[in-house]
Amino acid sequence: MKLATLVTDETTRAAVGTDSGWKLLPHTDVAELLAAPDRQAAAESALDSAEEVVAADEARFASVVTAPRKIICCGLNYSDHILEMGRELPSHPTLFAKYSDALTGSNETISAAGSRAVDWEAELAVVVGAELSRADAGEAASAIAGYCVANDVSMRDWQKRTLQWFQGKNFTASTPLGPWLTTADEFGAEPSFTVEGWINDERVQHGDTATLVFPPAALLSYISSFTTLRPGDVVLTGTPGGVGQGMRPPRFAVDGDVLRTRIEGLGTLTNTITD
Amino acid sequence: MKLATLVTDETTRAAVGTDSGWKLLPHTDVAELLAAPDRQAAAESALDSAEEVVAADEARFASVVTAPRKIICCGLNYSDHILEMGRELPSHPTLFAKYSDALTGSNETISAAGSRAVDWEAELAVVVGAELSRADAGEAASAIAGYCVANDVSMRDWQKRTLQWFQGKNFTASTPLGPWLTTADEFGAEPSFTVEGWINDERVQHGDTATLVFPPAALLSYISSFTTLRPGDVVLTGTPGGVGQGMRPPRFAVDGDVLRTRIEGLGTLTNTITD
Repeated sequence: MKLATLVTDETTRAAVGTDSGWKLLPHTDVAELLAAPDRQAAAESALDSAEEVVAADEARFASVVTAPRKIICCGLNYSDHILEMGRELPSHPTLFAKYSDALTGSNETISAAGSRAVDWEAELAVVVGAELSRADAGEAASAIAGYCVANDVSMRDWQKRTLQWFQGKNFTASTPLGPWLTTADEFGAEPSFTVEGWINDERVQHGDTATLVFPPAALLSYISSFTTLRPGDVVLTGTPGGVGQGMRPPRFAVDGDVLRTRIEGLGTLTNTITD
Repeated sequence: MKLATLVTDETTRAAVGTDSGWKLLPHTDVAELLAAPDRQAAAESALDSAEEVVAADEARFASVVTAPRKIICCGLNYSDHILEMGRELPSHPTLFAKYSDALTGSNETISAAGSRAVDWEAELAVVVGAELSRADAGEAASAIAGYCVANDVSMRDWQKRTLQWFQGKNFTASTPLGPWLTTADEFGAEPSFTVEGWINDERVQHGDTATLVFPPAALLSYISSFTTLRPGDVVLTGTPGGVGQGMRPPRFAVDGDVLRTRIEGLGTLTNTITD
């Protein structure tokens, strides 16, 4: 099942994908649906109803979840990206935080104002569907509501100002998340995904999540050992090689550049950089 | 005016401090009060009402704000602490994030479970009272709702596992914030505070916020240049010298140790470490 959060008049609505378009649910976003005790029933009843449908080519996507309490990101998780950044394979996941103000939807523009080093990081994102505290990997795997695409667009100049990456990772509306969520039941127990990133017509990133040092369930389990994850929370799993700052010379996105971020089976984010 | 969030039966309530005790407000926490358009009137009307009063020695404090969307912390902000950590004075603030699950109140215990290196960081905390985006220092100063005490208790073993401090700074209920908020109107335009930290009967930290590299208004202005701050959000301003990992040999808090964190004019946090 595909679940999206669509921008409607002055608000947002969760929606279920069908052959005839996106059928709107009463929930304001996918997170609210995931937190509802009857989410499967709610989504299925929407499939039976034909009242409010948005045609696929008229849908305006918000971030799949609009206001998660936690967006925890893993850096340095693909061995090829770790090596291009000049670092060693880690024994623990490198984690940092975003706040929901950093999120945006597919087809929205991303402002480069204030930065001269806008870089791309194509990533698999996991949306949490159940509360997790001190969970083992099996419990964590069962708590994955679904998967979507993210681009952890990073302002490298701000990221490198200090030892902590936070400020370069939290520019308002800089991280597209979506375009929709594909629920975990559409995949096997430990699915692997091909992650690709383009700048304009050039494919610069290409990786497979099978090569993650810390796969999704391991990440969720680790995070749950020190804090609680709840429905609608998001975990970004890191980016493969091919980011701009790893190039010689480094290359960054500027006004007018289009970032496309694609995971086969999950969809494509398209976002234009503006000044 | 002193504002607190008190633990009541199964919930929390904002309260105003008076000579006769804490007068309860209808708001569930201080952040909800700060976001209300009529906050001054609400607080003052509670002062006139004598209906629900909690005696000062019977108050159980929650974190002053219980669910802020953002808790942004500045590291390396006191010159003496920067030097004891072996670093140079910074040109930009080092920022990292907490989530609200990390917060707790004064007199609550702090679990050391999972860490063998529980360290203390006495800090001045600022609670935001108005929305701030791309604000200059003057606008930021006007948006400070008030000040309180925090201890950015840090699990150094987890903090040092990777380059990013996040995981060592986000253990559930590890950061006491309070005991109450003293509103900014009780102080001058750029007040300075003496920050002190004790472990048991030994004072280990002592600093003055007059020596901050980035004082509160400058921090809020900087943060607002890349993201939005809103009423109830919290900014921690960093810790002075005297943390355990700066000692030779390093010293950490263990089961039964009592951390006291005091800022003259703002109050004292008392928290016991448990296993």
